[in-house]
Amino acid sequence: MIIVLKPGATEADIEEVSRRVRDFGFKTHLSRGEVRTIIGIIGDDRAKEQLLALQSLACVESVVRILQPFKLASREAHPDNTQFTVNGVPIGGKQIVVMAGPCSVESREQLMEVATKAKAAGASILRGGAFKPRTSPYAFQGLEEEGLRLLAEARKATGLPVVTEVMEPDKVDVVAEHADILQIGARNVQNFSLLKRVAECGKPVLLKRGMSTSIQEWLLSAEYILAGGNPRVILCERGIRTFETATRFTLDLNAVPVVKKLSHLPIVVDPSHGTGSWEYVAAMARAGLAAGADGLLIEVHGKPEEALSDGQQSLKPDKFRHLMEELRPLAQVLGRSL
Amino acid sequence: MIIVLKPGATEADIEEVSRRVRDFGFKTHLSRGEVRTIIGIIGDDRAKEQLLALQSLACVESVVRILQPFKLASREAHPDNTQFTVNGVPIGGKQIVVMAGPCSVESREQLMEVATKAKAAGASILRGGAFKPRTSPYAFQGLEEEGLRLLAEARKATGLPVVTEVMEPDKVDVVAEHADILQIGARNVQNFSLLKRVAECGKPVLLKRGMSTSIQEWLLSAEYILAGGNPRVILCERGIRTFETATRFTLDLNAVPVVKKLSHLPIVVDPSHGTGSWEYVAAMARAGLAAGADGLLIEVHGKPEEALSDGQQSLKPDKFRHLMEELRPLAQVLGRSL
Amino acid sequence: MIIVLKPGATEADIEEVSRRVRDFGFKTHLSRGEVRTIIGIIGDDRAKEQLLALQSLACVESVVRILQPFKLASREAHPDNTQFTVNGVPIGGKQIVVMAGPCSVESREQLMEVATKAKAAGASILRGGAFKPRTSPYAFQGLEEEGLRLLAEARKATGLPVVTEVMEPDKVDVVAEHADILQIGARNVQNFSLLKRVAECGKPVLLKRGMSTSIQEWLLSAEYILAGGNPRVILCERGIRTFETATRFTLDLNAVPVVKKLSHLPIVVDPSHGTGSWEYVAAMARAGLAAGADGLLIEVHGKPEEALSDGQQSLKPDKFRHLMEELRPLAQVLGRSL
Amino acid sequence: MIIVLKPGATEADIEEVSRRVRDFGFKTHLSRGEVRTIIGIIGDDRAKEQLLALQSLACVESVVRILQPFKLASREAHPDNTQFTVNGVPIGGKQIVVMAGPCSVESREQLMEVATKAKAAGASILRGGAFKPRTSPYAFQGLEEEGLRLLAEARKATGLPVVTEVMEPDKVDVVAEHADILQIGARNVQNFSLLKRVAECGKPVLLKRGMSTSIQEWLLSAEYILAGGNPRVILCERGIRTFETATRFTLDLNAVPVVKKLSHLPIVVDPSHGTGSWEYVAAMARAGLAAGADGLLIEVHGKPEEALSDGQQSLKPDKFRHLMEELRPLAQVLGRSL
Repeated sequence: MIIVLKPGATEADIEEVSRRVRDFGFKTHLSRGEVRTIIGIIGDDRAKEQLLALQSLACVESVVRILQPFKLASREAHPDNTQFTVNGVPIGGKQIVVMAGPCSVESREQLMEVATKAKAAGASILRGGAFKPRTSPYAFQGLEEEGLRLLAEARKATGLPVVTEVMEPDKVDVVAEHADILQIGARNVQNFSLLKRVAECGKPVLLKRGMSTSIQEWLLSAEYILAGGNPRVILCERGIRTFETATRFTLDLNAVPVVKKLSHLPIVVDPSHGTGSWEYVAAMARAGLAAGADGLLIEVHGKPEEALSDGQQSLKPDKFRHLMEELRPLAQVLGRSL
Repeated sequence: MIIVLKPGATEADIEEVSRRVRDFGFKTHLSRGEVRTIIGIIGDDRAKEQLLALQSLACVESVVRILQPFKLASREAHPDNTQFTVNGVPIGGKQIVVMAGPCSVESREQLMEVATKAKAAGASILRGGAFKPRTSPYAFQGLEEEGLRLLAEARKATGLPVVTEVMEPDKVDVVAEHADILQIGARNVQNFSLLKRVAECGKPVLLKRGMSTSIQEWLLSAEYILAGGNPRVILCERGIRTFETATRFTLDLNAVPVVKKLSHLPIVVDPSHGTGSWEYVAAMARAGLAAGADGLLIEVHGKPEEALSDGQQSLKPDKFRHLMEELRPLAQVLGRSL
Repeated sequence: MIIVLKPGATEADIEEVSRRVRDFGFKTHLSRGEVRTIIGIIGDDRAKEQLLALQSLACVESVVRILQPFKLASREAHPDNTQFTVNGVPIGGKQIVVMAGPCSVESREQLMEVATKAKAAGASILRGGAFKPRTSPYAFQGLEEEGLRLLAEARKATGLPVVTEVMEPDKVDVVAEHADILQIGARNVQNFSLLKRVAECGKPVLLKRGMSTSIQEWLLSAEYILAGGNPRVILCERGIRTFETATRFTLDLNAVPVVKKLSHLPIVVDPSHGTGSWEYVAAMARAGLAAGADGLLIEVHGKPEEALSDGQQSLKPDKFRHLMEELRPLAQVLGRSL
Repeated sequence: MIIVLKPGATEADIEEVSRRVRDFGFKTHLSRGEVRTIIGIIGDDRAKEQLLALQSLACVESVVRILQPFKLASREAHPDNTQFTVNGVPIGGKQIVVMAGPCSVESREQLMEVATKAKAAGASILRGGAFKPRTSPYAFQGLEEEGLRLLAEARKATGLPVVTEVMEPDKVDVVAEHADILQIGARNVQNFSLLKRVAECGKPVLLKRGMSTSIQEWLLSAEYILAGGNPRVILCERGIRTFETATRFTLDLNAVPVVKKLSHLPIVVDPSHGTGSWEYVAAMARAGLAAGADGLLIEVHGKPEEALSDGQQSLKPDKFRHLMEELRPLAQVLGRSL
């Protein structure tokens, strides 16, 4: 972090700011330019947040953050890729992981059909929402506990581990009882109470990027989970909000190489939410792998036109199977397996 | 809502889509253009969410929402402005409400000084954070329950009602015990579990706009609270995320006349978070009132340069007093009082 | 500007980067942190652009710009507000300037009616488009030279100076012949060939902000005109592009106090383009003045519903008159006159 | 296009709006909902722009565009992909086109080295800027005509066709004399005077997307060129402006499948400008191909750290060669050749 002083800052100003920085426990390093003086701040970056307040001094022009503010999530602290397995399914290594299933769990029949066909097509994890964060209070809100039980049944029947969303701290235990990976949805990426609870719970966490969360903030949310003692975090890029309306969100694949540079955590891509349209899912799934993602999260539904949520972005089982066939040689050319 | 069919849609396609719409309980209205057929959907808009799934049919080009999807929050359903009082402080009427105080409650001394001076300057509600949603896990997380007790003390000493943030469903009761208005922060605007709980609680709610929440989505979040039986919702514009980095967020004052057109709910403006810089607070506070806001939320701190959070955007008490003196004649010219 | 080296950068790396900086003619200042070394660069900021290329060295983590890259447009270089008159109309001083008129010049009758009524209501400059930048090639493209002649006629009849857009370098002379202020539209804010030509021309320039132009880039575009020898630049905030669709653009009033801090140039606000809806023009015009703008640009049309462009955001003459009556006491309370 | 009337619109209102629509030469189709009446407008969409002005009528709630406003650029009008050759290099077919070269032409030596190595690595078109649109007036502005001559020399030496930017109508002829493809830069995508001139010129045009241009607006800019009689347009996605600052722009690969659905025009991807960092170019080049792009535009420079512009995003020739080797098997797996 550096502090840029206004032109005309006096020696007394420089000394006052420096003293305040030292009072916070940091060393300073002075650099006098032709017009402005800059005070560099030396010490552990995690604690520097509070120094932003020095912008309220009249002689300070700006306080500029230079380094990334996360530590445990950074590749510097942990140069090798994080790898782990979930019920035998490897994540973060050479093997691409494909998580597939319906947006919402709607019924036993619906879920079983999709789970069986997704597995047959090569998916290795089953996704499905039991608790649903819906923009409108009048939209279907999910089967809740009943949905969790159906997911556990589907796991038993197919052997596929289950990822499903948890929306509030109080439900972490019950979701963790039925699921193998806890999903934090985009709208909860900065629900810090929830992040702290899933950290304690210890189960692997799929952390979706918020629709307006910068990559830095996203990695700070991951840092909450890591700092809480849970190292098994999977990042999921699912589209950000921009001015473009031709797609529901703007799937930001740039995040894949950026995350790979800054962090050791595995990252998967969700082209279903990212584009909001089944017609674009295959292209962006391919592109996600080519950008270097460790896996994909894809919505599959037996009858998308009757889905209780997000039918417009779900693939039918045969389209999903066809996509998986396309992805296999692509993964191979990229030095991965699927 | 209307469904646009692709060029070349057959009579069988039209009949199939129409049948599906009718199966959902809606009437249809057919309009044949030169190239495309459009199916209008007649009936209660709140239930139409699910029809978006019809975009997964091959013959459907798009499903376009025409009407606003909220009802209780709409001015159509409730033509007159919502007005109520909080411990005698009127909100939503001619009187401008100013909520002032520190970003975080840090100590009894800090809070009492600000509360006393804010009141003397004309603030009518005291703000202060006890539970703090912080981007970094290493930043100050708030005094929590101790902070709530200090706020209650400050209320007793000054008579100012208190607004403070609640971050998780489980804490709604304890926050409601000490506070007069429950604040839902920007990061929780789509934390639907929390919205449902504050609806049940019945206390007035200050609902901040999320940094990437459209006005329509924001009003749908308000609808969650209204539909849960709690009519006392105050909206708070606090800045959205855009490409511009000269300000921390982009305070979107356009939201004020838009909300006034679409809804009957009172709206206040937070120029402190909206700009992220104390140097811009006064200008944007004035502009907020001139745009038609019913009030302001302003961060005030005795020693901003030592604040544990957001010092850079806090006004010192004397600057706040000076701003209030500027705002009084401005309110009058706008036909309001302060 | 500072250069942040990667952790593990060697002494040889530090020396190589420093040498390259010195080769560009700048002095360096070394600061060794606990993990990273930072090289500060001392010298005229205008020439530092090229140093960004050093990011291509393997040992460099980032090159961070600290200072504003414009000079002539900065308040540092020119502490007092720029003020000048256009045919006797003062701009940039205590007096608020209101520029009003139709989006497009459509006919003599249309223009004369609006010009006469705008003047009667208190507008001091007449706006009207002769060359029109239209998103669609099938939309009305303006009356071109004929439109310029009508504007000159309207000036003669009313005494109001004229502001109108110029879209290409070749047309600068003919537009300058008929107009008193040359408008650079939002889509041309980074049309550098055009900026250089209007600089040479010497007439006052109204420089609209682009829909995705940062304030820094906008001031750099102003710098092109100032550096070309033309000091009479008026900035115009007209809305930026964000995710919000309730308004056509997001009028960014934060730009007003930011520009006032960074620059000495006058700034006016265009609530017509900024919101895209006549229903929001009055609220945002008031807010623009309260934010500190030096003037307003407002579209007025005798029959908006028949306008050949942007009718939806134009005020009828009586609504404009009413707005002007509201603005006068507001200006007074703000210490301005109108 | 449809017109939504406000609740409470009378029969007289409906008749007035309908009459106005008919006066513009369109047929209407009335649909009465439970609360609102909707007027559908039947007829050629290209001419409907002006109907937006009807939003200024008090009884009109909104005017909603349903269909895409471009025609010649649409896949409906032209179901097969546009394919053509430039000096024997096929564009828009099975063959992937790679355009490579320096951001700016700086000297004969610099250009020849890059051109020779780019060709050896498999590039089929040479890029290089002679006229440079630079944000700062103090940055290198290009070698201009001298740069054009060097490009023509390089073409002669290597046989590679040349693409280079033209920034103003007056320079179209001189650029066309030396170049094989005229590039319209992002900042000029809505410079309509320039679009009209390159349409007349007849040479193939590479039309970059603007940093805040929606896909619809971009295709309307293409429509200007097509409507002007020039069918050889290549679209180039080069990153849009969002809130994310980890990359210089946000390369929007979603645009590739969206453009492929809406239009028949070829589309290439520029990962150099799209990310702004050489470290991300390879990943996003691969992703661009996988998303379905017809080609790539990649900046290559012999000494990026000494480049006069954009060195930070340029690949060295050996890195470019390595990337080309990676891309070949990828193209094959995708059913393309390179």
